[in-house]
Amino acid sequence: MVAGSVVSVGDKIMLCRRAIEPRRGYWTLPAGFMELNETPEEGAMREAWEEACAKIAIDALLAVYSVPRISQVQLIYRATLAEPGFSAGPESLEVELFDWAGIPWDELAFPSVKWALNEYKSRLGQTIFAPGVNPPGMVGDRF
Amino acid sequence: MVAGSVVSVGDKIMLCRRAIEPRRGYWTLPAGFMELNETPEEGAMREAWEEACAKIAIDALLAVYSVPRISQVQLIYRATLAEPGFSAGPESLEVELFDWAGIPWDELAFPSVKWALNEYKSRLGQTIFAPGVNPPGMVGDRF
Repeated sequence: MVAGSVVSVGDKIMLCRRAIEPRRGYWTLPAGFMELNETPEEGAMREAWEEACAKIAIDALLAVYSVPRISQVQLIYRATLAEPGFSAGPESLEVELFDWAGIPWDELAFPSVKWALNEYKSRLGQTIFAPGVNPPGMVGDRF
Repeated sequence: MVAGSVVSVGDKIMLCRRAIEPRRGYWTLPAGFMELNETPEEGAMREAWEEACAKIAIDALLAVYSVPRISQVQLIYRATLAEPGFSAGPESLEVELFDWAGIPWDELAFPSVKWALNEYKSRLGQTIFAPGVNPPGMVGDRF
């Protein structure tokens, strides 16, 4: 079980460049395996803190993605910064804000990062919506 | 990770009386631990089949409940019968349809069964909504 978030800062989105395998050097959302005795929201907040030194405020459940090949379910939330400031944590080479046109689409770490970003974009301005799922026929890959 | 469903048949809701511990003899939703290499939707469909011999069609993600004490996350879907017919599977003593007033509220197996039923009721007629979460201050209990 993976928990993560699309964190927006103004009209930009926070991405982390992975310092660890798999997909070292590629860009991802702050996300990772849930630990024992935490809720998914707590997991997403902890991951944002560990990977981007960011204190986030969760707003909505953006998507539930499945990667059945590796028995993984990803709960991806929509969030903003609860406090100003962020920086690379130990698992990130760098953390940057991107406007939509600047997102490094060809250097995203996993398919579900792209899905979550598109889901985020499609939900801009919406407060009540059903969380997204895998695009039709897509099976995802590990975080 | 638990997947389950609130299955409606007309204006009634399907509940299963548990044949196994914990909470043997109490009423629950068809729900249980996800198996390897399945999606949450597949897990919910499998559980409905195993516990209630019911082929269900999933309509929406009704709720995401957390039970951090036991590191459990529950994805509860809204569903209808995809084919007529149901009966008690090996883990159920009986499977019955209840109208709202007839639900055995004092004999429900777990707090999240009650939460999911109330979420279901509050969403009647709605097709697009954010999934529910634990009621404020409530931490749930195992399925």
